[in-house]
Amino acid sequence: MECGFYDFQVQPREVDLTKRATLITLGDHILHTAGEDADRNGFGIRNLHEHNISWVLSRFAIEVDRQPEEYEKYRIQTWVADVSRVMTTRHFILWDLNGHEIGRASSLWAIIDMQSRQALDLRSNVQYTDVIVPLEAPMPRPARIGAIAGTWSEEHTVRYSDIDFNQHANSMKYVEWMTDLLPLEKMTSGRLARIDINYLHETRYGEKLTIAAEDNETCSRFEVRRQDGSAACRAMIQWK
Amino acid sequence: MECGFYDFQVQPREVDLTKRATLITLGDHILHTAGEDADRNGFGIRNLHEHNISWVLSRFAIEVDRQPEEYEKYRIQTWVADVSRVMTTRHFILWDLNGHEIGRASSLWAIIDMQSRQALDLRSNVQYTDVIVPLEAPMPRPARIGAIAGTWSEEHTVRYSDIDFNQHANSMKYVEWMTDLLPLEKMTSGRLARIDINYLHETRYGEKLTIAAEDNETCSRFEVRRQDGSAACRAMIQWK
Repeated sequence: MECGFYDFQVQPREVDLTKRATLITLGDHILHTAGEDADRNGFGIRNLHEHNISWVLSRFAIEVDRQPEEYEKYRIQTWVADVSRVMTTRHFILWDLNGHEIGRASSLWAIIDMQSRQALDLRSNVQYTDVIVPLEAPMPRPARIGAIAGTWSEEHTVRYSDIDFNQHANSMKYVEWMTDLLPLEKMTSGRLARIDINYLHETRYGEKLTIAAEDNETCSRFEVRRQDGSAACRAMIQWK
Repeated sequence: MECGFYDFQVQPREVDLTKRATLITLGDHILHTAGEDADRNGFGIRNLHEHNISWVLSRFAIEVDRQPEEYEKYRIQTWVADVSRVMTTRHFILWDLNGHEIGRASSLWAIIDMQSRQALDLRSNVQYTDVIVPLEAPMPRPARIGAIAGTWSEEHTVRYSDIDFNQHANSMKYVEWMTDLLPLEKMTSGRLARIDINYLHETRYGEKLTIAAEDNETCSRFEVRRQDGSAACRAMIQWK
């Protein structure tokens, strides 16, 4: 019944040309923290895979007050907030070394059977009672994002470098494909305030996808579509 | 006059579906080691940038006996072997925790003026005398790679996620574009023996590139071409 704390240092290969950690880097570190903390509590991927079950990220949101700089050390605090039959919530707070909050994140996870890809009852698969921390949520929960038409789009075929140990496209790769569609000025403006991501369907090696985007001063919206037109992932970025 | 040793652990986001560290991961770790060790010896990027000069990777080769597994800890040994007017050689040996060599690497570096992008005399810019370690080279030096026609190719526009703090495409991104052209079976075969890479010209955000490839049982060759037809990068992979 306590939070986990995990230390990071922003490496040169994790910054963009502004020498600040990219959104992808922050997302990777946050998800890494989730994995480590689950592992430490005995329900990490290693344990789950022994039973042919695995974690699936369903929704994810990150708020960014300040993107840490190259070589900056910072700390991610994490805890499990609740668990229901189908979904568990894990929160995060990002702290700099002066003890200031520089961001926060919230994530919703399900457990699937790796063969059938069907969601399983969390409460009968993970011993959660001892790990839930009754702290207040650090931010509004990850939003449900509606369909968009998109004012422009690009095609993308899922490649070797996109897929992870789960044999599907990695969670942060969707965000990489999406943000690569935006003007460079926007990505390097330091105005990133919040991203909300909905993961709706996994995508596999060789799948041909369409990444659609629409964008205005304060908000960018994205949809990754499969060949049958269904959405695999949607996201919304809010700008300061 | 001693080698540096740097410890790594293969993280879940650094493996492919075979749960072994990817070539990109190994290259990232090796280049990270080079950066850390240069930094520790007082001629890292941080020091150089204060004088508006920077390191540029010219040639790089990696030999892989065994790709370390997910969560496996391993160690990279590195040292500076020599320094001439225009180029310095840095070697690496990858060790597993049982003290077995699992790979090695060799790299050639120049120093450029960040404004003019011209190469500078290394000996008048870096105090090297004290750091050269007179150890035998762990492998044949990175090869010069000739032009190829290519039996197939893909277009690629340099994106936000491709560029690093130097404002050009990151060294390992070329390898990512290249290896994404190969059949998945080849990349996951565990037969990777050696890659040699020649960096010939930097590429900038928005540049349209052609990535050409040719491939047989024992050898894959690649060329990244700029719009004027000149080569930005060439590489050759040898397979066991």
